[in-house]
Amino acid sequence: MKKTVLLVLISVISTRAQTVTEQVRQYRKAHETALMDEYRQFLSIPNVSSDSVNIRKNATFIMQMMKQRGIQPILLDGAKPGTTPAVFGEMKVPGAQKTVIFYAHYDGQPVNPKQWADGLQPFTPVFVTAPVEQGGKIVTTYKSGDAIDPNWRLTGRGSADDKAGVMTILNAYDALVKSKITPTVNLKFFFEGEEEVGSTHLGEIFEKHRDKLASDLWIIADGPRHVSGKRIVQFGVRGDVNMHLTVYGPKRPLHSGNYGNWAPNPAWRLVKLLASMKDDDDKVLIKGFYDDVAPLSASEKQALAKVPNMEAALKQELGIAKPDGNGTPFVELLMRPTLNINGFQSANVGAMAGNVIPAKAEAVLDLRLVRGNDVTRQIGRVRDHIQGQGYQIIDHDPTDAERQQYPKLIKITQGHGYNAQRTPLDLPVAQSVIKAVQSTTAEPIVISPSSGGSLPLYLFESVLKANVVSVPVVNYDNNQHAENENVKVQYLWEGMEIMAAIMLMK
Amino acid sequence: MKKTVLLVLISVISTRAQTVTEQVRQYRKAHETALMDEYRQFLSIPNVSSDSVNIRKNATFIMQMMKQRGIQPILLDGAKPGTTPAVFGEMKVPGAQKTVIFYAHYDGQPVNPKQWADGLQPFTPVFVTAPVEQGGKIVTTYKSGDAIDPNWRLTGRGSADDKAGVMTILNAYDALVKSKITPTVNLKFFFEGEEEVGSTHLGEIFEKHRDKLASDLWIIADGPRHVSGKRIVQFGVRGDVNMHLTVYGPKRPLHSGNYGNWAPNPAWRLVKLLASMKDDDDKVLIKGFYDDVAPLSASEKQALAKVPNMEAALKQELGIAKPDGNGTPFVELLMRPTLNINGFQSANVGAMAGNVIPAKAEAVLDLRLVRGNDVTRQIGRVRDHIQGQGYQIIDHDPTDAERQQYPKLIKITQGHGYNAQRTPLDLPVAQSVIKAVQSTTAEPIVISPSSGGSLPLYLFESVLKANVVSVPVVNYDNNQHAENENVKVQYLWEGMEIMAAIMLMK
Repeated sequence: MKKTVLLVLISVISTRAQTVTEQVRQYRKAHETALMDEYRQFLSIPNVSSDSVNIRKNATFIMQMMKQRGIQPILLDGAKPGTTPAVFGEMKVPGAQKTVIFYAHYDGQPVNPKQWADGLQPFTPVFVTAPVEQGGKIVTTYKSGDAIDPNWRLTGRGSADDKAGVMTILNAYDALVKSKITPTVNLKFFFEGEEEVGSTHLGEIFEKHRDKLASDLWIIADGPRHVSGKRIVQFGVRGDVNMHLTVYGPKRPLHSGNYGNWAPNPAWRLVKLLASMKDDDDKVLIKGFYDDVAPLSASEKQALAKVPNMEAALKQELGIAKPDGNGTPFVELLMRPTLNINGFQSANVGAMAGNVIPAKAEAVLDLRLVRGNDVTRQIGRVRDHIQGQGYQIIDHDPTDAERQQYPKLIKITQGHGYNAQRTPLDLPVAQSVIKAVQSTTAEPIVISPSSGGSLPLYLFESVLKANVVSVPVVNYDNNQHAENENVKVQYLWEGMEIMAAIMLMK
Repeated sequence: MKKTVLLVLISVISTRAQTVTEQVRQYRKAHETALMDEYRQFLSIPNVSSDSVNIRKNATFIMQMMKQRGIQPILLDGAKPGTTPAVFGEMKVPGAQKTVIFYAHYDGQPVNPKQWADGLQPFTPVFVTAPVEQGGKIVTTYKSGDAIDPNWRLTGRGSADDKAGVMTILNAYDALVKSKITPTVNLKFFFEGEEEVGSTHLGEIFEKHRDKLASDLWIIADGPRHVSGKRIVQFGVRGDVNMHLTVYGPKRPLHSGNYGNWAPNPAWRLVKLLASMKDDDDKVLIKGFYDDVAPLSASEKQALAKVPNMEAALKQELGIAKPDGNGTPFVELLMRPTLNINGFQSANVGAMAGNVIPAKAEAVLDLRLVRGNDVTRQIGRVRDHIQGQGYQIIDHDPTDAERQQYPKLIKITQGHGYNAQRTPLDLPVAQSVIKAVQSTTAEPIVISPSSGGSLPLYLFESVLKANVVSVPVVNYDNNQHAENENVKVQYLWEGMEIMAAIMLMK
């Protein structure tokens, strides 16, 4: 008896899941123009986190999207006025036992329009036939209503990271409603506006609205699918923090001939300082940098072993003859802390370069953290190292007195960072998500113990005591955080199917 | 008898020189508004060397200035069309035995308007009460005809380097003519338009117009007066060449989380490469870098010993606690070759910084050369060092095949460089210049065996077999080659008196 019921249930689930994916696909095919017109409009609103006026226009746009889909949106603010609010909404399902909150963020990384390819602009989305770096051309003939090739990319800041999350979640829900399919779980929607600046007020928002945000599971729709193109479910993220370094030379730029060999050059100073932090194999030399790393569990090791090895293809595509890491597999390297130079600058290069001793030299470091690392402790180690190189650390531009007192001065400012997070692979709710995502495709999905990327997921655990699982939807080659960001159209369509499957999870 | 004649002559010279300086001053005081109106107009014409349209407008403007002063100008071109021409003119003096050519250049270093202080723009000259870095304010009330405080600075690219040379030379001549004073030497004028890009075609121009350019002496009106404010005569320059380095990472910028620890970061690579070139005391570690340096002569050593020591004041003004060079005097450090970082860049810093592994990292190096150095040999040493660090050197952006073949790729391009030049201090013509400049002031002038800066003066020796002496006119704190370039008004006025004295030299 029991056995029969179970078989019937499995059969129902299987049929229904298959049906759902197909029905969502059918709905999408019938509405591609409208879906894409709305998404292009969404991408046209500048969304750099620090641009507080435009960032609120994005929130307003999302609220309109929700209203049009029958969801009553509200803004969740932090403790103080001025916080960029999260957009929230919920739909209760009669009889549902579990509640799942779907997360995406609508803010984006800073843009330097000059670095974008000819014809591409961060906030004027256009279709390209392929990534421009691979010879893709702008589809100049496209107008609303034309057929959209699913292999095209739609360009623009946020097209992949992470307005795609908002788009696929809300449209998955809409597809279910319009197809008269009832979700199996209560649904909540949470769209953040400060993710790219370190989710500065997310903890405050969680604490202030703890009751509204009660759930059994958060689904994080952010980051890229696996490099192989396979669908992926991720059970953790690295932590992250930025450090901004400024080393000082003479108070004004000097003629490199008239002062050369005498006036200290801050570019040389910064070069020597940074070089002291790594060996020639890219291993960090800062004392204790790797000390806190917690070892992988047995199930994490198993999962890593099953992740498809894409290194040969990546090396080819990215033009890399020899990766860092001395032969350690890619997936293992992502389980270690990093010390990355995001960028550096001193005076000018190229046509604007002059023969000067610059007045200052700057670098931005990005530190990724893994389980066991503590953000404050890790920053402290870098600061200790810099002090050990003879630098006086200050948090402001130096005064004349400081300049006279200290031969080596450095300004260090830090972003709002956070620790890593991992959800155990064997939780029942984790297994439910794996099954739901697997139901959308015949191809085996990838199960990853942790993304290489970062989100402040530790907050979900520490403040809300919640379970968190990431289900990325976009292509890996999306130029996330950089120029020419893009999303592959087909991945948006499949993202809707994936999110819908999770809304039907058991 | 002989003795008497000599005494009379000395008396005449002395009286006349004093008179000249005073008469030039009188003329200037009566014409300050016109002089400054014309100079401001001159500075309003953009003069970045590479801006070929505007650079010719500068040449046209100078030709007009010459015509208005009764000098018939012509353009001296190089071997091929497209060379930025030099502006040339000459005035023969009946009975004069010697010919002196006055040199200045009218092109300027590149500008980045964003780096200039609020209210200052490279090609909109304004008066400031003092250097903006020292709290100077824009004289917003100034209008043509107002009294001009000689302590004010006039701002703009070229205001000091080196339109000031053109201005003081042509106005010194004009002051003499208007004061009915006849020069003692035949005069020639030569204004170059390609100095800031390494005088690419100067040798060609010299060869093509060798006869027109015959002379006993070139006077180079370029560079700053001594840091003490004293007038200076310089008998040499360092050579100079730029090297542009580009190190390559992945073909496109990558998310620093998703690829961090695996994808090689070109910013780290460049940092390690540059750091390998110098020790912690700023000494160059490149093999043979100091090998060719010719020792100083006895008279050069004597002259150096008399140069006022300004280090304490400079340290104070520039905010430097400890200069490079391990205690070697400033003037001696200028007699050594340099390896300077003019600037570097990879991705972005500040508000535009993103969490990326950049696709490339660039640096511009400036190599100053001294007597004994050869530009090709010196560049070769740097290239050898870079190869020794495991780099494959290319002169173009890498192809896919090169990226797959070489783990460490660097693009190196070089500017058009040149060697150092020195004129022996004890040449009679050298001593004549010293006396003429000394005649304009009661204060002892500074005699320098070589400037720290560079001009392609080796060409004057090698192509024209000419003697060359530099007589700078502008203030040392002029931000030459950098933002907020400025000239102190009083130095323009004194520059006219100095140039006039040389036109009366014996």
